[in-house]
Amino acid sequence: MWLPDRASSKPVYRQIAEHFERRIKSGELTAGSPLPAERKLAAELAVNRTTVIQAYEELRASGWVVSKVGSGTVVAGGDASPLRTADWRKYLDVGTMLPNSDAMRRIRSGLRREAGLVDFASGELSEDLFPGETVRSIFSEQPYDGPLGYDDPQGYGPFREALAAFLLRQLRIGTSASSLLITSGSQQSLFLIMQCLLSQGDAVGVETPSYCFSLPLLQSAGLRVYPLQVGPAGIDPEDVVRLHRRHRLKMLFLNPNFQNPTGTVLSAERRAALLRIAEKEGIPIVEDDPFSLTAFDGRPPLPLKAEDAGGRILYVGSLSKVAASGLRVGWLAGPQEIVSRLADARQQMDFGMSVIPQWLAAKLIEGEAFDRQIGRLRAGLALRLDELRASLDYHLSGSVSFEPPGGGLNLWVKWLGDNDPRQLRMLERAMSVGVAYVPGQVFGAEEPSLRLCYAKPEAGQIERGVIRLKEALLRS
Amino acid sequence: MWLPDRASSKPVYRQIAEHFERRIKSGELTAGSPLPAERKLAAELAVNRTTVIQAYEELRASGWVVSKVGSGTVVAGGDASPLRTADWRKYLDVGTMLPNSDAMRRIRSGLRREAGLVDFASGELSEDLFPGETVRSIFSEQPYDGPLGYDDPQGYGPFREALAAFLLRQLRIGTSASSLLITSGSQQSLFLIMQCLLSQGDAVGVETPSYCFSLPLLQSAGLRVYPLQVGPAGIDPEDVVRLHRRHRLKMLFLNPNFQNPTGTVLSAERRAALLRIAEKEGIPIVEDDPFSLTAFDGRPPLPLKAEDAGGRILYVGSLSKVAASGLRVGWLAGPQEIVSRLADARQQMDFGMSVIPQWLAAKLIEGEAFDRQIGRLRAGLALRLDELRASLDYHLSGSVSFEPPGGGLNLWVKWLGDNDPRQLRMLERAMSVGVAYVPGQVFGAEEPSLRLCYAKPEAGQIERGVIRLKEALLRS
Repeated sequence: MWLPDRASSKPVYRQIAEHFERRIKSGELTAGSPLPAERKLAAELAVNRTTVIQAYEELRASGWVVSKVGSGTVVAGGDASPLRTADWRKYLDVGTMLPNSDAMRRIRSGLRREAGLVDFASGELSEDLFPGETVRSIFSEQPYDGPLGYDDPQGYGPFREALAAFLLRQLRIGTSASSLLITSGSQQSLFLIMQCLLSQGDAVGVETPSYCFSLPLLQSAGLRVYPLQVGPAGIDPEDVVRLHRRHRLKMLFLNPNFQNPTGTVLSAERRAALLRIAEKEGIPIVEDDPFSLTAFDGRPPLPLKAEDAGGRILYVGSLSKVAASGLRVGWLAGPQEIVSRLADARQQMDFGMSVIPQWLAAKLIEGEAFDRQIGRLRAGLALRLDELRASLDYHLSGSVSFEPPGGGLNLWVKWLGDNDPRQLRMLERAMSVGVAYVPGQVFGAEEPSLRLCYAKPEAGQIERGVIRLKEALLRS
Repeated sequence: MWLPDRASSKPVYRQIAEHFERRIKSGELTAGSPLPAERKLAAELAVNRTTVIQAYEELRASGWVVSKVGSGTVVAGGDASPLRTADWRKYLDVGTMLPNSDAMRRIRSGLRREAGLVDFASGELSEDLFPGETVRSIFSEQPYDGPLGYDDPQGYGPFREALAAFLLRQLRIGTSASSLLITSGSQQSLFLIMQCLLSQGDAVGVETPSYCFSLPLLQSAGLRVYPLQVGPAGIDPEDVVRLHRRHRLKMLFLNPNFQNPTGTVLSAERRAALLRIAEKEGIPIVEDDPFSLTAFDGRPPLPLKAEDAGGRILYVGSLSKVAASGLRVGWLAGPQEIVSRLADARQQMDFGMSVIPQWLAAKLIEGEAFDRQIGRLRAGLALRLDELRASLDYHLSGSVSFEPPGGGLNLWVKWLGDNDPRQLRMLERAMSVGVAYVPGQVFGAEEPSLRLCYAKPEAGQIERGVIRLKEALLRS
């Protein structure tokens, strides 16, 4: 990041002004783009606020920027500017991809800026739960020897072979390399399914609450989304039949094991019923299964896919929640013709993934190393969940109610207090006292609720986070 | 890949039948999916064709498959099948992503299957032009120490910093880390631009011929595409004005340096004129620049972006054609607000790229190592182009005409012979004698023409490839 040179003879305010002038000339900042708020910039550059004010004055004087009430200082456009900078504003609100929700964007920007925040919001593992040691030793023991050219559209062959064996060993899913598509996390699998197998206006059934609603993806794809309420035993198959009669469901999106956010496991009876319905009515099921292997007792409930005779289930998984999200390695298992159609479409979007993370992933999931990692992970997650439960019981008893899950990364909390954690101002307040969570409506929940991910904060931070929650949410 | 166990007491035809039965039961092969042609499968499994016929007989007898005139043997559906397998056919032809063209798919499948093919079709570098040594030494000298969690939506910070310095040093492009988006090759940059900044029915100007037409991308995005003919000095700025008056162009897609496929360089006067028009008419330009650094004389023409005052140009580049396509590391440089909008949308599609290839790329582009690589690459490409020219002059003089480029990977060949290399049967014929090329119409060309990429075949293979071309295309 650019910083003023205090050694230079040129006054700091001039350096700042010239810095922005350069960036406007280079077209990085175009007509209408805002300059940082004076207070914020002063903090970032560790200079006196008056210095920033002076710099902006100078830029105004020379016509590079204008100040508008409300929108602060923005780059000048049209004839106001010494140079006619492009006006991109009309390009910013078109296209098929909707922006993320306010809450999510607020959380993300907060997490980037505010240090020392206890992060119950990011649904990922903390650094110390990653297999960092294993990764380093893999790279140092054997320098990369995979291909450097374009690879198979379905993904790196040796990894798909290893993955087929892995899925059979760990989850009793019978598949083969040719029926697997390697994707950039589960996210890309879901995106491909929605963009390539469904059309605008198609009706789909989605668990409610569900992290799916946190993705603008469904709306971006223009799908009609019908909610399936999640109870203690998961969704009710009868609801599926009812919805299908009325709306002709084209697909179901389910997360049967340790559902995100509720943590529930779909009961055995309901699984059987759902599979019968899927066959009878011909409704394919997208089974998103990020958490099965985190089962604290080491005995994951079998995925639906393990009982899928007839190829009705598109099984979506990834290493993000059981190894490292930064690998961006996920997969989709399904009928070969579907997999190759999606692989062909993915070529258009990004021409496929780098082999390097797949090469690494192949070594990660082979044999003991992974079993050690997953064992360590289960213990670590169980420990954190215990700390979270104890802290909530101690500090917020009476204001919260929850069902502790048997696996996964998230605790779903119903809020019984007066304030509603779903209000943006409550989220703001929480972040201002140093704790982040995801408010319930992001998942489509109708009652006051929030999701607390216990995987991201280091053990030990968790109680501090809960105390801050209390401070933010109980205060009237 | 599965192979029958010849040691087993179970007859091979039974093993084959059971293999397919397993894959049908597991849902890998669903109603209507074709089984391999008997002859092809016999070759793959190195068994006698009658063995395959026996195996298919058995599957037919037990009702797993049915044989249809024309479509061969396919998995049985509905009541014909012992098990009601899902019917995905109605999901295969919807969605917004169009499949690749016949020619491209034929070429890809050919390249996968037919060994010993001289490959003038794939627009990428051969293994020996990749910086394999450097990559191995980077990983072995310093085990990976980058993050393993979700990363900045715009890409790995240290790489963006290194890239900003690299673009300034190599191509005089002034930008900064905050104005760069790291993408999965140029392909993802183009996809993001078309999906997020343009809407269905928008008019865009595209060079003709252009590799753009080889991407179903433009059609998938529903854009109205208007051709800009490429002459010896590139496109004519007057054509842009004319098209804009008539159709209100929302954007131009250009590849000014060593254009793909023609290899032409846009002249200095025309660059200046285009920049004036872009400013006057307010038409943003997407500048795709994969080849600048390959300039054989080591003095690349400056990209338009280097002269972009006002931020009208979205600059798209990658390491695919100058280092290794398998890294899948590309970038987009543009106004900050555009870059962050695209980063936000990309999160929805794949939640960002793995840091590992970006960590590697940061080390690759720093300092001497890269200069050595690029020097070696330029020499290697120039050598191959010389061999291709000489071979064409010697073996096909009178049937071909071409303008040798000063850089890039491709030679654009006008075909003067009787046969038209654009016909699928000519392509088939060429591949049957062991050489692959891309027919001109794939790039939107109207006259008989083909693109020969000289970067992929090893030096020494090239003349053999040309002799095979002659054999395929001159034969009546």
